[in-house]
Amino acid sequence: MNNFEHVKSRRTRPAKPPLGLDIIIKTAYQLLSEDGISGMSMRKVAKALDTGPASLYVYVENYQKLSSYVLDYALQDVQLAESETASWKDAIIDVLRSYFLTLVKTPGLAELTLSTSPNGPHSLEINECLLRNLQAGGISPRGAAWGLDILLLYTSSIAIERARHDEKDRDVEELQASYDVLEDSKYPMISMLKSELFSGDGKERFTWGIEVILQGILSMKK
Amino acid sequence: MNNFEHVKSRRTRPAKPPLGLDIIIKTAYQLLSEDGISGMSMRKVAKALDTGPASLYVYVENYQKLSSYVLDYALQDVQLAESETASWKDAIIDVLRSYFLTLVKTPGLAELTLSTSPNGPHSLEINECLLRNLQAGGISPRGAAWGLDILLLYTSSIAIERARHDEKDRDVEELQASYDVLEDSKYPMISMLKSELFSGDGKERFTWGIEVILQGILSMKK
Repeated sequence: MNNFEHVKSRRTRPAKPPLGLDIIIKTAYQLLSEDGISGMSMRKVAKALDTGPASLYVYVENYQKLSSYVLDYALQDVQLAESETASWKDAIIDVLRSYFLTLVKTPGLAELTLSTSPNGPHSLEINECLLRNLQAGGISPRGAAWGLDILLLYTSSIAIERARHDEKDRDVEELQASYDVLEDSKYPMISMLKSELFSGDGKERFTWGIEVILQGILSMKK
Repeated sequence: MNNFEHVKSRRTRPAKPPLGLDIIIKTAYQLLSEDGISGMSMRKVAKALDTGPASLYVYVENYQKLSSYVLDYALQDVQLAESETASWKDAIIDVLRSYFLTLVKTPGLAELTLSTSPNGPHSLEINECLLRNLQAGGISPRGAAWGLDILLLYTSSIAIERARHDEKDRDVEELQASYDVLEDSKYPMISMLKSELFSGDGKERFTWGIEVILQGILSMKK
């Protein structure tokens, strides 16, 4: 390559940004947002950064580690409302609703919460905030620690359901239609509870579920 | 093709079984068991049955419908223990534990429960059994109907976590190590509850969670 060509190539092609953990995480998150979990392989992230996978491994040990970082990065959007006036229950519901909205916004993120433990400051702050409010509600140390897990799992599972709501909504309509023609004598409970099985909207049910879990934790002896 | 070639081809190649909904569902379930959700496309099922996707659509409207059938088919393994002596709570815990084991056994099945409503007799029987026991526990109609959903979601989310336990276990170890070096002043709750956050085994926590949800539903006013 002569000097002239070198100058030309620098002009037509932007200089590569220096590689580092931050840009790797941001790029992986970008790919996740666009294509879901399958878009976020080490190979694809390397390609998007115009480098080879080997260069990535200098900064990130493996795919599982990358997922942990990306998950924590995405969780920075969760609002930790620290109102002085809200009750401990309302504070928990608000944080979990924001957690839910964050998960639903990015395809694949909710699934990632079930396969990966987030690694970084944002998940720590969410956990700290929820634990503080659980303690404020008089919940035992074990109840707070184990209950935290259930609350996050519950929110993740609703987020995964919601992320696929188009298909699921069609399913639910069909399910409801199929319940209408069920033999009452064979499925007496389903027939009796048919309307309650489909009652309430997503938000109402989500909040009800959080309250159920909080009431349940409160009632546990250990 | 002359007659001789026709006879030869019938001998070297087994006769195709007649196509129908049952064999399509069984084949799709087989592919799911082997390769997870990505193994179960209409195209792959058609290929395994040595036919074209168009022939499948005669029996199954679309992929979403196929998933509903396959999910219900897989749920036939769930044991609906109907012991006369078990309390309503223990009966629910037993059914959900069997549901959990069924989901964990087949890769992709747990994820399927979050994206698909099962369509068929097995899921109806599971729902009927759980609702009957919830009612036996004195839970209100709404509590039983909405609570059913939470119990199944909770079990699914634990099953998804468990299905990837190798990666998750490694994560948990790393998480625990990272908690050991946290600044106490910045994360006082996490530091204080460190041992409880990682205490208990999977089974103990699973059962605790079901009890939390049942106690919670019992305590709800509506």
